[in-house]
Amino acid sequence: MTDNSSALSNRWTDGIRPFLAMDILKRARELEGEGRSVAHLELGEPGAAPAPRVLEAVARALPEPQGYTNAKGLTSLRQGLASYYERQHGVSVDPDLIMATMGSSSGFILAFHAAFKPGARIAVTRPGYPAYLNTLAGLGFNPVEIPVSAGNGWRLTGADIEQAFWKMPFDGLLFASPANPTGASLNRAGLQDVVATCKRLGIQLISDEIYHGLDYSGPSVSALELTRDAIVINSFSKYYCMTGWRIGWMVLPESLIRRAEILQQNLFISAPTLSQIGATVALGERDYAEEQKAAYARNRTLLGQGLRELGFDLPDDGDGAFYAYAGIGRFSNDALDFCLTMLDRAGVAATPGVDFDRIDGNGFVRFSYAGTERSMEQALERMRMFLKAGG
Amino acid sequence: MTDNSSALSNRWTDGIRPFLAMDILKRARELEGEGRSVAHLELGEPGAAPAPRVLEAVARALPEPQGYTNAKGLTSLRQGLASYYERQHGVSVDPDLIMATMGSSSGFILAFHAAFKPGARIAVTRPGYPAYLNTLAGLGFNPVEIPVSAGNGWRLTGADIEQAFWKMPFDGLLFASPANPTGASLNRAGLQDVVATCKRLGIQLISDEIYHGLDYSGPSVSALELTRDAIVINSFSKYYCMTGWRIGWMVLPESLIRRAEILQQNLFISAPTLSQIGATVALGERDYAEEQKAAYARNRTLLGQGLRELGFDLPDDGDGAFYAYAGIGRFSNDALDFCLTMLDRAGVAATPGVDFDRIDGNGFVRFSYAGTERSMEQALERMRMFLKAGG
Repeated sequence: MTDNSSALSNRWTDGIRPFLAMDILKRARELEGEGRSVAHLELGEPGAAPAPRVLEAVARALPEPQGYTNAKGLTSLRQGLASYYERQHGVSVDPDLIMATMGSSSGFILAFHAAFKPGARIAVTRPGYPAYLNTLAGLGFNPVEIPVSAGNGWRLTGADIEQAFWKMPFDGLLFASPANPTGASLNRAGLQDVVATCKRLGIQLISDEIYHGLDYSGPSVSALELTRDAIVINSFSKYYCMTGWRIGWMVLPESLIRRAEILQQNLFISAPTLSQIGATVALGERDYAEEQKAAYARNRTLLGQGLRELGFDLPDDGDGAFYAYAGIGRFSNDALDFCLTMLDRAGVAATPGVDFDRIDGNGFVRFSYAGTERSMEQALERMRMFLKAGG
Repeated sequence: MTDNSSALSNRWTDGIRPFLAMDILKRARELEGEGRSVAHLELGEPGAAPAPRVLEAVARALPEPQGYTNAKGLTSLRQGLASYYERQHGVSVDPDLIMATMGSSSGFILAFHAAFKPGARIAVTRPGYPAYLNTLAGLGFNPVEIPVSAGNGWRLTGADIEQAFWKMPFDGLLFASPANPTGASLNRAGLQDVVATCKRLGIQLISDEIYHGLDYSGPSVSALELTRDAIVINSFSKYYCMTGWRIGWMVLPESLIRRAEILQQNLFISAPTLSQIGATVALGERDYAEEQKAAYARNRTLLGQGLRELGFDLPDDGDGAFYAYAGIGRFSNDALDFCLTMLDRAGVAATPGVDFDRIDGNGFVRFSYAGTERSMEQALERMRMFLKAGG
């Protein structure tokens, strides 16, 4: 149907695959280069700049030489994060257990190498963030997949973990709530079930909390409210609109912090200094972040309703993040082909489910509603024409 | 002699050690927190901000949302780098083989995982940059050390490689010219010898060129002038004064570029966007960089002469970078103790040789001359008093 599939479907024998979302973005940019208009529902990133006070602080710091910081990061940033946990989650966290990272990306690498030996088995959910599997395989760890299903709102349970564990034991669980691509979130009882199951089975929990704050059905619950044994990974990318700034953080158990710090010194030295300065200020700008979130909440309803009207299978709108993971069974059984065709013919970019689920993902497409209301409306209108014309 | 050594000498059983330079910096900051003055000769980073036009370009870009870029980085940056190779090295490099990275740090991780399987044996020089060994061990690779000696100006030769290889074969060689901590640089014939030896023995060469431009005895030679099979790693940190910006680049052989790009997508997504924008402009600001270098050149002579007068063993001033790797045989046989005592008593921070050489490093200290002329003079005067008082 298109001639792009060969480059995009390039496969690696060792378990690492191209991240199709990035390749779809590349193709979208090519089309735009040819003068075509594209509605970007493939992007997992906010369209807004960080809060004005963040930009002011960075502009003020610009003329100064920005050297490396301590490996753990600026004290002011780590103290600000400790206050954030106190205020948002009612938990006291020692700033010395917090480390600033280059986005959550480097946080994952540090977490894996701080907690596990190469070759360790680490479980993730299916569907899930594709970089999980690829990073684990690329770094020489062995990923294990735990299936979750639309029937249970894509939410992971202790029973799911236990069932997978007894089939094939694993050393760690890397788990996100809210989740990408489904938006599924665990409430306090749900997360407690996961934490307790990991504890009982001796599984090191890595709690990916990068979509925290982007919650539409109840406040995000941090693993830190329930345990001090988990590695918590978070980021300024999504809630604070700082994707390209590559700044995140992690909270480590006391037993792992020194090793993680030494790994950081050697693997990364320190997180970008200007981004650390901006992030410190961002923590005080939650009103601005809540304005962005209100726009996502409107998009969520608009897109969810629109997709259902068009015939996509989307039982509910998801609890958090800014994604709708919609079934395409009425239109196609090849998600990549569906997405490429929709991009080329209708100018709507979305991400094929196979990125998130190598087994059942051909039946799904992920739409991001992080963009503008206008782009949601435009995408729905274009898809209406496209699907009417037979896809 | 001090009570800091226990925290600083913390050792790991799996080959990863604290990066003492960073711990010395931490201790120096503590002393400064107590109101003490410290001459910072431990820092491997320039004291100046990037060129004014770099800052202007970043200030202009600040108000725009800075999302992720393509995994490889901004086209303008990669085209600028291709022009740089044309102009500085007379070689034509396809911008599609260039990838922007988060400092050279993430470049190393990408290089190792693109070119080797975990467990592969990778050789480095001894003495050498400590993060090499620690990163390799931390990521599950097996480092091999090739000794180089002061007698040969610390320069690696093909014969050194061959001798080490036949004792214990290895898959890769990670090699820097100019080198940290010795400043040793290979001229064209020397690098050709290394390249040819690697080719003959089937060793994948990774050429660390992050100190390129900071050369005092002849122009830096890039491996790209001699071969297209090497992975070249470089950075804006040193020559362009952008350490805290965490921006570097790599040039890959055609056979590895797609794999490296996919690893980047998954492991890091993309390098910091504002830093990419600044770096693009920095490439055109070499006059500013040359002014900084002229100051290092003056410091190099001043410090080298001063250290020799004080009784340090330093046969010559090194070819490049901004380091003097000086023998302390007349004063001590415990470099860490010497550095901690000198820091606490004299307020001069320098890095113990054991960071760079676990076998012979106790006889050496690395002084950085990246700081101001004033700090060089201050350090020499303080050391004069300290050594006169018996160390």
